[in-house]
Amino acid sequence: MASRHRIAQQLLRARPRIHQSAKHSARSFATGTSHSTSAARSKLLSVAVVAAVSGASISAYNMAVSDPIHMEARSLADLDERRKREQGVDDQSPMRLRMEKFIREQQEHIVAELEMIDGKRFQRDEWQRPHGGGGLSCVLQEGNVFEKAGVNISVVYGTLNPQAIKAMKANHKTMKEDEALDFYALGLSMVLHPRNPMAPTVHLNYRYFETMKPDGTSQAWWFGGGADLTPSYLFDEDAVHFHKTLKEACDKHDKTYYPRFKKWCDEYFSNKHRGETRGIGGIFFDDLDAAEADAENTFAFIQDCLKNFLPSYVPIINRRKDMPFTEKEKEWQQVRRGRYVEFNLVHDRGTAFGLNVPGSRVESILMSLPLTAQWRYMYEPDPKSREQRLLDVLRDPKEWV
Amino acid sequence: MASRHRIAQQLLRARPRIHQSAKHSARSFATGTSHSTSAARSKLLSVAVVAAVSGASISAYNMAVSDPIHMEARSLADLDERRKREQGVDDQSPMRLRMEKFIREQQEHIVAELEMIDGKRFQRDEWQRPHGGGGLSCVLQEGNVFEKAGVNISVVYGTLNPQAIKAMKANHKTMKEDEALDFYALGLSMVLHPRNPMAPTVHLNYRYFETMKPDGTSQAWWFGGGADLTPSYLFDEDAVHFHKTLKEACDKHDKTYYPRFKKWCDEYFSNKHRGETRGIGGIFFDDLDAAEADAENTFAFIQDCLKNFLPSYVPIINRRKDMPFTEKEKEWQQVRRGRYVEFNLVHDRGTAFGLNVPGSRVESILMSLPLTAQWRYMYEPDPKSREQRLLDVLRDPKEWV
Repeated sequence: MASRHRIAQQLLRARPRIHQSAKHSARSFATGTSHSTSAARSKLLSVAVVAAVSGASISAYNMAVSDPIHMEARSLADLDERRKREQGVDDQSPMRLRMEKFIREQQEHIVAELEMIDGKRFQRDEWQRPHGGGGLSCVLQEGNVFEKAGVNISVVYGTLNPQAIKAMKANHKTMKEDEALDFYALGLSMVLHPRNPMAPTVHLNYRYFETMKPDGTSQAWWFGGGADLTPSYLFDEDAVHFHKTLKEACDKHDKTYYPRFKKWCDEYFSNKHRGETRGIGGIFFDDLDAAEADAENTFAFIQDCLKNFLPSYVPIINRRKDMPFTEKEKEWQQVRRGRYVEFNLVHDRGTAFGLNVPGSRVESILMSLPLTAQWRYMYEPDPKSREQRLLDVLRDPKEWV
Repeated sequence: MASRHRIAQQLLRARPRIHQSAKHSARSFATGTSHSTSAARSKLLSVAVVAAVSGASISAYNMAVSDPIHMEARSLADLDERRKREQGVDDQSPMRLRMEKFIREQQEHIVAELEMIDGKRFQRDEWQRPHGGGGLSCVLQEGNVFEKAGVNISVVYGTLNPQAIKAMKANHKTMKEDEALDFYALGLSMVLHPRNPMAPTVHLNYRYFETMKPDGTSQAWWFGGGADLTPSYLFDEDAVHFHKTLKEACDKHDKTYYPRFKKWCDEYFSNKHRGETRGIGGIFFDDLDAAEADAENTFAFIQDCLKNFLPSYVPIINRRKDMPFTEKEKEWQQVRRGRYVEFNLVHDRGTAFGLNVPGSRVESILMSLPLTAQWRYMYEPDPKSREQRLLDVLRDPKEWV
């Protein structure tokens, strides 16, 4: 059988480094003119001219641009860094910078709020990818309320080869070329695993993806994301509250969003091999692009979704974090955590994508896994138990609002 | 990105049930003549005639063979069952039945030996697949020596579609047709996770795969398998003993086997996303077919390998099972178990294959997962510790014999 790892590696294999730099240089020039300082502009211009002159001969071009200092200065990642530093980010900035600014603010806000709830500080690790991008991972482990909690941001600047583009074209009609394309991916991912088995695990992810034409202008873009709840013990009032809060954010923008994205969530977060969903759902959407709504409207929707996270979850964790529980109930939580691991490692496309991006930070990607998990052979709850009630709902998802 | 689950489902999607029965009927007739009783033969003959008459019209054919009793009687699975029941299995039987008999005997023997070591009995679950095949899962959980131990046999009768055949043809030159083919897969899988962190986890799998032409004769066959050791704490003498015992089995058959299969093992059991092997290896070979050696010789090799399992592992578990250990050492074992889960769920082709065969028994496939595992963020051993020594070896596999 084809291994997922191998396939994803084929899709994502980086083109030769020098060649990549060549394209970056031309692109940076084209996209950079309106925002660059004139010094930066003339530097980029000279590089672009070298690129133009080198024509069809890649090896001649390689020699022309082999100065490592110039290479560093020319990438989109570096251009974006300079833009942020010199001009700040406002409504006129490229969407990727506005989205990045927004999720960085939200990360800070959410982490602060969770620290208030837990009483323990998150560990903050800032990291960089060798050729542009990086992230900030905030992880709290063995807290008072959370056994493990991660709130991460990551930014990837990379290259898609023709195979990957072909796979993506099916969903994005604006993608037309079959040559290699540069891409930009940015996202905030959060998973909170509470200690108390009565308190549900929650996951959230909002991301922005952009591909660029050879001249450096944006070619296709899309937003994706969602939030979903995974209880070990089901409290209907929690499920209703969580879904209701998400629905409010959806309804402000499009009345069809919640029903569509609720269904999508149940379908996506499914342990197909067990015939059960991971949890009691929420919303999920993989690619909201220009065919759905314009970028401004979709960005406004994403902002409302993310801002609604704390109101959707904080009342629940406050209600459940100090409830009494038995050893047997803790064991059931551990078994459910095993199922969580199964979904994330076997089915989740985000995890597969992350693990197969060269130079990715594995510890940030796998922060989604619980601190502890169990696999008990043939573990079957009693037919009329609360554990069985959860399974029934996971096997046949309910409408909560 | 393409999801592994989806791809494997496409590869393995069963053809319509009735259509499959039609082919089974013709095949059973063709392969069955020399061994069937005359009563069985005439029954099969009549069905084959119906199949021939139905010609191109599938729907007409459906009506002609819709008697459920006849359908049951015609599959290769049923024919094999009858052969075993009426004639027993000897050196003249098809290889799949000889291999099945051998691994069933070995399963019984190994389970008995492990029960002696642990003092607790295995739970035995016999199960059947709806359209032929099944298995016997023997699992011991929370034993005295083993936290979890599984010794499983499974048999699958199924159909490969053209896509799957195309993928397999690369390794098997005797596979020539591009139409759908029936296949047979049989294997013994074993994973033992001891309680004591000083005692290594061991994994073993030997399997036999066969594809059949439309006339029911064998088209291609191959054996695969191997055994590998995964310690949390490395004792060189254990690693040397384990590899030496495997090498002895290999050397009896081909001096090139051990070096080739040892290397293959290190390459296969690799958590590529972490740049480390799962354990300290052993041997692994994916497809020993007619291009390598004839079926008799390869079967003899497989027998020696499997018979060498107890001598390779029992001295090790006896040395380690009662060693003293600290809480911190138990924690390291739990983190290493997390890595074991990562390999099995992210990279292992056998697990992916199993989870995606329609009607597979998930609890048998995932018995390979440990009872308990942990994921600790940024868990780094001290530079000169025993834990770090293990990591060094996993990052740069050693030659042990």
